[in-house]
Amino acid sequence: MSEIRKDPIVNRWVITLDDKTFVPIADSEFSKDVLPEQDDLCPFCPGNEGKTPFSISEVKDKSGKWKVRVIPNNNPYLKVETPMYRKGVGIFDMISGTGANEIFIETPLHNADMDTLAIEQISDVIKSYRSRFLDLKNDTRIEYILIFKNRGIRAGGHLSHLHSQLMALPVIPKNVAEEIDSAKQYYDFKKRCIYCDLVDNEIQMKDRVVKESEYFICITPYASTSPFEMWIVPKQHKSHFSAIDDKEAADLAYVLKDAVYRLNKALNRPAYNYMIHTTPLKMPNLDHYHWHIELLPRIKSIAGFEWGSGFYINPTIPEESAEYLRNI
Amino acid sequence: MSEIRKDPIVNRWVITLDDKTFVPIADSEFSKDVLPEQDDLCPFCPGNEGKTPFSISEVKDKSGKWKVRVIPNNNPYLKVETPMYRKGVGIFDMISGTGANEIFIETPLHNADMDTLAIEQISDVIKSYRSRFLDLKNDTRIEYILIFKNRGIRAGGHLSHLHSQLMALPVIPKNVAEEIDSAKQYYDFKKRCIYCDLVDNEIQMKDRVVKESEYFICITPYASTSPFEMWIVPKQHKSHFSAIDDKEAADLAYVLKDAVYRLNKALNRPAYNYMIHTTPLKMPNLDHYHWHIELLPRIKSIAGFEWGSGFYINPTIPEESAEYLRNI
Repeated sequence: MSEIRKDPIVNRWVITLDDKTFVPIADSEFSKDVLPEQDDLCPFCPGNEGKTPFSISEVKDKSGKWKVRVIPNNNPYLKVETPMYRKGVGIFDMISGTGANEIFIETPLHNADMDTLAIEQISDVIKSYRSRFLDLKNDTRIEYILIFKNRGIRAGGHLSHLHSQLMALPVIPKNVAEEIDSAKQYYDFKKRCIYCDLVDNEIQMKDRVVKESEYFICITPYASTSPFEMWIVPKQHKSHFSAIDDKEAADLAYVLKDAVYRLNKALNRPAYNYMIHTTPLKMPNLDHYHWHIELLPRIKSIAGFEWGSGFYINPTIPEESAEYLRNI
Repeated sequence: MSEIRKDPIVNRWVITLDDKTFVPIADSEFSKDVLPEQDDLCPFCPGNEGKTPFSISEVKDKSGKWKVRVIPNNNPYLKVETPMYRKGVGIFDMISGTGANEIFIETPLHNADMDTLAIEQISDVIKSYRSRFLDLKNDTRIEYILIFKNRGIRAGGHLSHLHSQLMALPVIPKNVAEEIDSAKQYYDFKKRCIYCDLVDNEIQMKDRVVKESEYFICITPYASTSPFEMWIVPKQHKSHFSAIDDKEAADLAYVLKDAVYRLNKALNRPAYNYMIHTTPLKMPNLDHYHWHIELLPRIKSIAGFEWGSGFYINPTIPEESAEYLRNI
């Protein structure tokens, strides 16, 4: 028996069913056990810094060695050096490839994964995200910064050394604009933030909660597009990720590590993506929009139906995913 | 040097660049040469009709054998038998899994592909699509019918015997609603259909045209999300696919076969999807919306950046894709 669930924020419909025949594609192709602690060929390993561009910033340990390193992508999709212009091309519109594309090397260890790092180390990564936001904000051509991780080949991540990326964009991406517009409509109607309502509802209902910490809640969303999808949402209203303080960063590191640990246990180290959705740089604090992280295991192929319609099929009931993850 | 192109219809941005290092994932895993003409284990092969549910409809040859067979999916995601209801679940909305999920077996031959079928055979498939639209329209609970093909495992198609699918939905999918809304805004501003303008522009510009026939044009869209993406668009304004006449169906069969032939030659039988985008069933003929087919080779993984933002990266310039495909 299937049901069709609506995501309350982006008006996306998901056919939700309990398909016992579903077999997850569960392999990031990066198994901790088979990777060495250092790999001479890896451009992200200590000692090979010469194979990558200069460091934009570094977090160092007491002995002066880097713990987290931020570098420009070797082959960036967008460059700050490209002069910004907009052009009409016949009936179409284009913008120059102005922006930035940076990489966060999250650990010196080649074989580390999120669930083996110290919380302090993950917290340093989160604080590196924050400082890149604060720096890039000074470039007035940038409208939006997207931080994301592609872990495993099926998730678009081709290097096994743990890293995440940043894209600084001269336009606001479609999905973010939609979320904000939709949250605004809800606010205009109810005078409440839809994410705040979501947090309250999930804490009260309990059945979709994977983890609750001091500042965050980790849930499987009601209209999850994929089995074991999780969202990590601040419990208090916060519209800009970059306003995260050190205490919150440490708590987020704890919840993020916990989520990846559960995912890795549940699905044997699947490929996954996470993305930080936040308010566009030039917007003030918004009463109607709330930053959050979406964590998506890539264990299901996206077929024509889903691609063509924006209508998803989830073979697992989100409440059962949450229960399974909670019990790990 | 990259540029950022905007899709004029759905306001989606695509970073377009000429990345010579891009290697397409090019294998549908179904090679014509290794498949037998008949497979005793295949539920879609003649002689095995007992392994599938009853036929909803059949196109027969002169000797009375079926050429095209339409059946319900064995494990349908949605069922006409499910009573239709809408329910609030806390702060969320759901609908019962009411609808239909049917399969078009496009040929009796186990090893056929779109580019080896006779045009008349493909035309019979298209006319079968049309008759299912006209029949399912009588069920007033159905709001939208999506016809799509998943060809190859990477495209979500797990059976090698050539087939396509139909999902009849009690709601209008998000992507379709967005296209229609956006086309309506354009129409309100210009009093012209954006797809008609697109057809005129592409015929005039020539550089993105792959094929032009009597009734259709096949193009690589200006803001293609993937290398070798193609759209097949009626040259005259037509809002409902189901209004296609027999002459147009034969011409569409010719253009569709041609497009898949070129794709198979260019990329060595890649996995691909196609989807028919059309006006929702209960809407009258719309001056602002124009049905079309989107054909998408699945040769590129979708990473977190794209998933999280609805912002795509295309490593190939669409004009170069069109030239390459034209020259095959």
